[in-house]
Amino acid sequence: MKKPWQGRFTEKTSRIVESFTESISFDRRLWKYDIEGSIAHAQMLARQGIITHNEAKKITGGLRQIAQEIESGKFSFREDLEDIHMNIEAALIQKIGDVGRKLHTARSRNDQVALDLRLYLRAESGEITSLIQKLQGIFLDLAGQYFGLYLPGYTHLQRAQPVLLSHHLLAYVEMLQRDRERFSDSLKRINRLPLGSCALAGTTLPIDRTYVAQLLGFVETAQNSIDAVADRDFAIEFLSNCSLLMMHLSRFAEELVLWSTEEFKFIELPDAFTTGSSIMPQKKNPDAAELIRGRTGRIYGNLLNLLTMMKGLPLAYNRDMQEDKLPVFDTADTIKACLSVLIAMLPGVVFQTERMQETAGAAYSTATDLAEYLVKKGVPFRQAHELTGRIVLSAIRQNKKLEEISLEEFRKYSPVIQDDIYRRLSVADSVGNKKSLGGTSPSEVKKQIKRLKKLIQ
Amino acid sequence: MKKPWQGRFTEKTSRIVESFTESISFDRRLWKYDIEGSIAHAQMLARQGIITHNEAKKITGGLRQIAQEIESGKFSFREDLEDIHMNIEAALIQKIGDVGRKLHTARSRNDQVALDLRLYLRAESGEITSLIQKLQGIFLDLAGQYFGLYLPGYTHLQRAQPVLLSHHLLAYVEMLQRDRERFSDSLKRINRLPLGSCALAGTTLPIDRTYVAQLLGFVETAQNSIDAVADRDFAIEFLSNCSLLMMHLSRFAEELVLWSTEEFKFIELPDAFTTGSSIMPQKKNPDAAELIRGRTGRIYGNLLNLLTMMKGLPLAYNRDMQEDKLPVFDTADTIKACLSVLIAMLPGVVFQTERMQETAGAAYSTATDLAEYLVKKGVPFRQAHELTGRIVLSAIRQNKKLEEISLEEFRKYSPVIQDDIYRRLSVADSVGNKKSLGGTSPSEVKKQIKRLKKLIQ
Amino acid sequence: MKKPWQGRFTEKTSRIVESFTESISFDRRLWKYDIEGSIAHAQMLARQGIITHNEAKKITGGLRQIAQEIESGKFSFREDLEDIHMNIEAALIQKIGDVGRKLHTARSRNDQVALDLRLYLRAESGEITSLIQKLQGIFLDLAGQYFGLYLPGYTHLQRAQPVLLSHHLLAYVEMLQRDRERFSDSLKRINRLPLGSCALAGTTLPIDRTYVAQLLGFVETAQNSIDAVADRDFAIEFLSNCSLLMMHLSRFAEELVLWSTEEFKFIELPDAFTTGSSIMPQKKNPDAAELIRGRTGRIYGNLLNLLTMMKGLPLAYNRDMQEDKLPVFDTADTIKACLSVLIAMLPGVVFQTERMQETAGAAYSTATDLAEYLVKKGVPFRQAHELTGRIVLSAIRQNKKLEEISLEEFRKYSPVIQDDIYRRLSVADSVGNKKSLGGTSPSEVKKQIKRLKKLIQ
Amino acid sequence: MKKPWQGRFTEKTSRIVESFTESISFDRRLWKYDIEGSIAHAQMLARQGIITHNEAKKITGGLRQIAQEIESGKFSFREDLEDIHMNIEAALIQKIGDVGRKLHTARSRNDQVALDLRLYLRAESGEITSLIQKLQGIFLDLAGQYFGLYLPGYTHLQRAQPVLLSHHLLAYVEMLQRDRERFSDSLKRINRLPLGSCALAGTTLPIDRTYVAQLLGFVETAQNSIDAVADRDFAIEFLSNCSLLMMHLSRFAEELVLWSTEEFKFIELPDAFTTGSSIMPQKKNPDAAELIRGRTGRIYGNLLNLLTMMKGLPLAYNRDMQEDKLPVFDTADTIKACLSVLIAMLPGVVFQTERMQETAGAAYSTATDLAEYLVKKGVPFRQAHELTGRIVLSAIRQNKKLEEISLEEFRKYSPVIQDDIYRRLSVADSVGNKKSLGGTSPSEVKKQIKRLKKLIQ
Repeated sequence: MKKPWQGRFTEKTSRIVESFTESISFDRRLWKYDIEGSIAHAQMLARQGIITHNEAKKITGGLRQIAQEIESGKFSFREDLEDIHMNIEAALIQKIGDVGRKLHTARSRNDQVALDLRLYLRAESGEITSLIQKLQGIFLDLAGQYFGLYLPGYTHLQRAQPVLLSHHLLAYVEMLQRDRERFSDSLKRINRLPLGSCALAGTTLPIDRTYVAQLLGFVETAQNSIDAVADRDFAIEFLSNCSLLMMHLSRFAEELVLWSTEEFKFIELPDAFTTGSSIMPQKKNPDAAELIRGRTGRIYGNLLNLLTMMKGLPLAYNRDMQEDKLPVFDTADTIKACLSVLIAMLPGVVFQTERMQETAGAAYSTATDLAEYLVKKGVPFRQAHELTGRIVLSAIRQNKKLEEISLEEFRKYSPVIQDDIYRRLSVADSVGNKKSLGGTSPSEVKKQIKRLKKLIQ
Repeated sequence: MKKPWQGRFTEKTSRIVESFTESISFDRRLWKYDIEGSIAHAQMLARQGIITHNEAKKITGGLRQIAQEIESGKFSFREDLEDIHMNIEAALIQKIGDVGRKLHTARSRNDQVALDLRLYLRAESGEITSLIQKLQGIFLDLAGQYFGLYLPGYTHLQRAQPVLLSHHLLAYVEMLQRDRERFSDSLKRINRLPLGSCALAGTTLPIDRTYVAQLLGFVETAQNSIDAVADRDFAIEFLSNCSLLMMHLSRFAEELVLWSTEEFKFIELPDAFTTGSSIMPQKKNPDAAELIRGRTGRIYGNLLNLLTMMKGLPLAYNRDMQEDKLPVFDTADTIKACLSVLIAMLPGVVFQTERMQETAGAAYSTATDLAEYLVKKGVPFRQAHELTGRIVLSAIRQNKKLEEISLEEFRKYSPVIQDDIYRRLSVADSVGNKKSLGGTSPSEVKKQIKRLKKLIQ
Repeated sequence: MKKPWQGRFTEKTSRIVESFTESISFDRRLWKYDIEGSIAHAQMLARQGIITHNEAKKITGGLRQIAQEIESGKFSFREDLEDIHMNIEAALIQKIGDVGRKLHTARSRNDQVALDLRLYLRAESGEITSLIQKLQGIFLDLAGQYFGLYLPGYTHLQRAQPVLLSHHLLAYVEMLQRDRERFSDSLKRINRLPLGSCALAGTTLPIDRTYVAQLLGFVETAQNSIDAVADRDFAIEFLSNCSLLMMHLSRFAEELVLWSTEEFKFIELPDAFTTGSSIMPQKKNPDAAELIRGRTGRIYGNLLNLLTMMKGLPLAYNRDMQEDKLPVFDTADTIKACLSVLIAMLPGVVFQTERMQETAGAAYSTATDLAEYLVKKGVPFRQAHELTGRIVLSAIRQNKKLEEISLEEFRKYSPVIQDDIYRRLSVADSVGNKKSLGGTSPSEVKKQIKRLKKLIQ
Repeated sequence: MKKPWQGRFTEKTSRIVESFTESISFDRRLWKYDIEGSIAHAQMLARQGIITHNEAKKITGGLRQIAQEIESGKFSFREDLEDIHMNIEAALIQKIGDVGRKLHTARSRNDQVALDLRLYLRAESGEITSLIQKLQGIFLDLAGQYFGLYLPGYTHLQRAQPVLLSHHLLAYVEMLQRDRERFSDSLKRINRLPLGSCALAGTTLPIDRTYVAQLLGFVETAQNSIDAVADRDFAIEFLSNCSLLMMHLSRFAEELVLWSTEEFKFIELPDAFTTGSSIMPQKKNPDAAELIRGRTGRIYGNLLNLLTMMKGLPLAYNRDMQEDKLPVFDTADTIKACLSVLIAMLPGVVFQTERMQETAGAAYSTATDLAEYLVKKGVPFRQAHELTGRIVLSAIRQNKKLEEISLEEFRKYSPVIQDDIYRRLSVADSVGNKKSLGGTSPSEVKKQIKRLKKLIQ
């Protein structure tokens, strides 16, 4: 088969350069979108009288046949045909003859590949968004299921204040909600039709790009042909959104790893989602969580890859840009796999309620409540804070819990302290009274569950 | 001065750790936002009866004085007070006495620093957006000024088809427009009030976060206190938007470098924006453009810095997160400087119109038009393309331009070619006939200028 | 087939986690090294009396059979067996029965995979080094072939001073030489045997690690079992070395792209290594060079991937580390492909000697020689430099070349200028007189060619 | 003050470009190296008769005076003089008059800045290496001090097998040793003199670069003038070495954070190296460790910055390369601060020996020893492993420790088990018997301490 551009050339393409420059080994994944775009393009060509309706019909029919062949695994991709576009076009010509040679009228591989990638990313963004939504649902289910269970809230990985486990889990629902917002924001920019920009300058043929946009469900038509073929913002945005999402997942994965240690012992992971050691049979390794955490580097690397690749490229298309596909594909696959594993695993996680309740109240975790108690009694915050610090220090030295300090001793520090202090130092009151908007009290958390449930529908 | 948390500690903080952990050397830049936030916080505390109105007045007055002192350079920041929050609070207490100790009621440095950074990024996003807008305006001015001037359009840095210089410049207006869209999208997520989340769990005191949000012009209130102090998405989004913007600038910078070479010679940069060599006096170096290109790495590095830092951090706040500020500050400064330099430099760039006109038509740049001519005469695209290729090859061998080929010779390749071909091979026709939406024809480019002018107002 | 660690587990491994955690789809590439390591291990076990010599023989025989099966494509890898280690062990047991169950004595997958990756990287480093050497040879050949040809030397992409093309090409030989040094330095750290560290603590069995090291050609034995299984420095070093190498290649690729533009026109790339456009038949795109440049981002991304992955991992092995393989494999493959393409392409590059000669002397490129002429006549450098600047400016204004300035006019600037100035302003003298060590004079460049030829043998 | 290259220019440099392009605000740090290099250069110029010995004396004297002024803070740096080179040269001319104008003979800022940065990196590499050595010493001291103390060895953050704390600490000594090796390897490539390459082509003046190399203590002289000014490998290598070092520190920092949690409770950090919370007085936050971990992103970002900046730059010098300094300076400072904090903090860390001893033996951590016991009695490894798994599972179900299983029960699983099993299941025996090279037995660890002590002297 001749290359589409071979007219001008006298030597044969070197075999080594063929396999160096080919993209069919990976861009074959775009076949569905390539065909979808070509069908819309052919319909427009016919509508505009650039080809006949009969020709469009033959082309469309041929393309649909090819789609079936690919789907059923019968299509054989050829490296010497370089990319998915040429593979499909060549097959089309073989199937329907000369008419097939008209399909590439008023377009170029430059705008075609930009189209395919946008269609792909639109679909993937949709799938990812719906997986995020599912994961949010599972967090919300857990928040409902374990409602009322306490967890030590951490800062600096030191126990700080008791919180509701549900409250902690909702923090992830919020993060994921922002992730969805970002994918949705970026969709606006994915949804712009590049086709019809041709190589870079547009065409002298009377095409109708708005009609193609309509057929393909694009919201807008890219308005500058040079930019349209030179632009990969939409791919980088996608990778950037995925990096943030992956960062969130890595934080939760880290918590799963920590929580399933012997030391924390807050959860037991379902057997089916852990593996053992080939030499230490007693171990139950949180592999899935570790791999999610570990794959964060992969997504970051993919983002950096594209950013580096695009740096300093003069307009319009440069062959460097062919390198956009692998990192994008790898990222979409990895993200979907990570989300799916969490969706499958989380419902089976068993929270060790007894251990969590017990630790939530330990380590002077209600000291802040003592400070706020003093504030309410009129002590300026900084003094209240310092007093509390001294009380805690004395308690540590006596190896006492806060609630084991006698009222007499309390009052040595401040006479405003009264009998009601003891209730205030309980975990139940500490959590229950944090009724500020977004705070950890059951009443507030309940509100948030309700709000978020609505958001994810 | 005592540390705010010193009650519990028995040893003095090591000097080495003090200078290792301090942030005042860089977070002092946030002073304006810290004070703005504190004033709003104090007003809310008074409104809710947590402090008296008189106390709030004193606090507010003290803070305003401090603001003046900082503005006029009279304030002396102290490293042993660690950060901007403690520097200001300590000064306040010194100024207004014990009342100052009440300001930190119902907040924590965790939610305070998140607030300050959001206020900072809101302001910076605004400034950057308005600089982008100015730069768009300058591109549009140039597009107007040089309307009608041809430029060789490039793909693979090979001359492909003639385009209007204006069309090429508008491609950057489009990129910058997407940049503005992104900053605007991210603003939604910056504009969420974290204050009142306290350390991580909220507070038992009867605060009104919605009121604070109102006072500070926030659109929403962060709804989960754990997430609110653990979240740095907004900073990463900012860096990611800046990375894309910087990538765009690097592409234009590359073109400025190329265009001002002896070889391209499309532009002459204004003397004031180039430098000479200390040993080669004849040179005129495009330093500003090179530095813009070079600083791209810096912004990418800052993005990676934050992504790496946040990876795998358990909730909620961890001290690692203090590292968010330097990359964010450096990015905002660098971006604003790069935009400002372009804004100042571009109006002085002199396009070498003669050279550009001449090259736009060279190198068989209208070959595509020949192909489309054939298509219009009924030749299937792929055949038209191959024929054109053969004609070009023969022309190269004879060292002829396309328009120097005789009609007779043309017709050897295809009998459909007629006398009208010669007009079609002119640059004027090649450009003028690309009337597809987004194409390079003057009529279409004029429309785009109009549309974009509206968009940037 | 049971998992090796299944004794303790009650539930079956989830299918989704199986495919999420498997590595056989990519680590199968390590089969050769895995078997090589196992054979050495078995021989040691026998020598130490831990298994019998007969058992070792059976194991060795079985492994060699498996190697043949894999090599000939008859082996079927199973995802449910997770990784290459278990795939081979399971096949061994099936082949030779219970004796196969003894092979894993005194080792763990943790030290086994570290071994395999080290053996792989040793081999790849060797292959890459030898490709670099070949590429150096080709640069040296070109430097010999085109000896005497001038090129404008650039700084800031502005023509600065004429240099020998050979001198310019040798700059790449120097860079590549440093690359080889780095791969060689890193080899010291690759060449340390981890096997026998077992899971992390060593073993109670009387193994002889030094003997295994000997059998496998390792120079040293890793001396701390915890470190040995937790260490991936050697993989990151490899990626870092590849990043620097790729950066060098990207610079040359950029020059190939520039040099093959219509504007520079210094070279013509061989047809077989360029492609045409599907719509602009006259173009000859430097795709191979562009792709090399574009793939730089991929290698950088891989480096960042591993660095990010390893950040903050507690000792010893964590499952995250499984993610080390893909970026390492992809990097080695990409680097080898880029080197191979350059090796194949460069000999076919045609330098446009006329164009290069002509431009080398243009644009006042010998101004520095004028300045140095003045210095030799006693003018302080800074004055000489300033005078030269003024002379050039006046020449530009008169649209004259330097050598077209009359002696009289020259002497208005400085009376020390004499008739001999005209020879000094020729490109031949400018280049010929730069005899400082490392300078561009033919005599010096000849010396360097000789030195470098020796180095690459 | 005139710019050195101002002769040719007609407009004044724009103020905005001046502040955009200046580097004096950061490269002033190189003053010492700039002067050192200039003194050596002047001495060579005199020796070669390019300037007189008297002139060299004046120059040298002037430079030494300037050095004193800078050291004592009396020197005022000027932004309009762009960089450190011009600031010093201008001051020299002001001080010693016209003679000062001769200093820049036969060099350029391109080779001068490459020289300065190499001298700087040589010094910093030395300081960092010596700090690493100190930190190794402290790890070794701790390993000696706590010799005999057990720690649970972890894989997947699950307790795996008991190890000696000393063994664990030595793992870091090994990592740091590799770091030192890398800095030392890179030093070879830093130690190459670029000076005398001038702008890019060498000089016609009879300089002696080898002599300058000698004076400045360089081991080699860069042999290609184009490469010498275009090369930043040495800076990237430095950043890459620092990234690996920082990754190691981040792993230890993570362990410090984990170990100082309430949950692990293996260590107590010295008060002086932690801070409290502004609202939770009971907390003791491992800030220093968190910041070390957090600053890893900064170093990675700096590495990526330089790699990105250098990507695709054509030879030789481009202004982009000015951007090399900030990431290098920031990295050296950060690394030295992190090392210094660890050096100061570690001796004060208190290991909670009781807690560590107790946990080291818990959680079936000697299961592997049971498996190896079976192997020694002739059970094939995989069977031994599976049997052990079943025994552990049964023990877990009965809530028994391994040593609480009766011999009778043991023998149900395998008749080879005898009374001696109980001793083998003790932590002391488990650790004590791992005598393989690099293993955790006290005898082996003692050997390693001895070996490493020698290495760090």
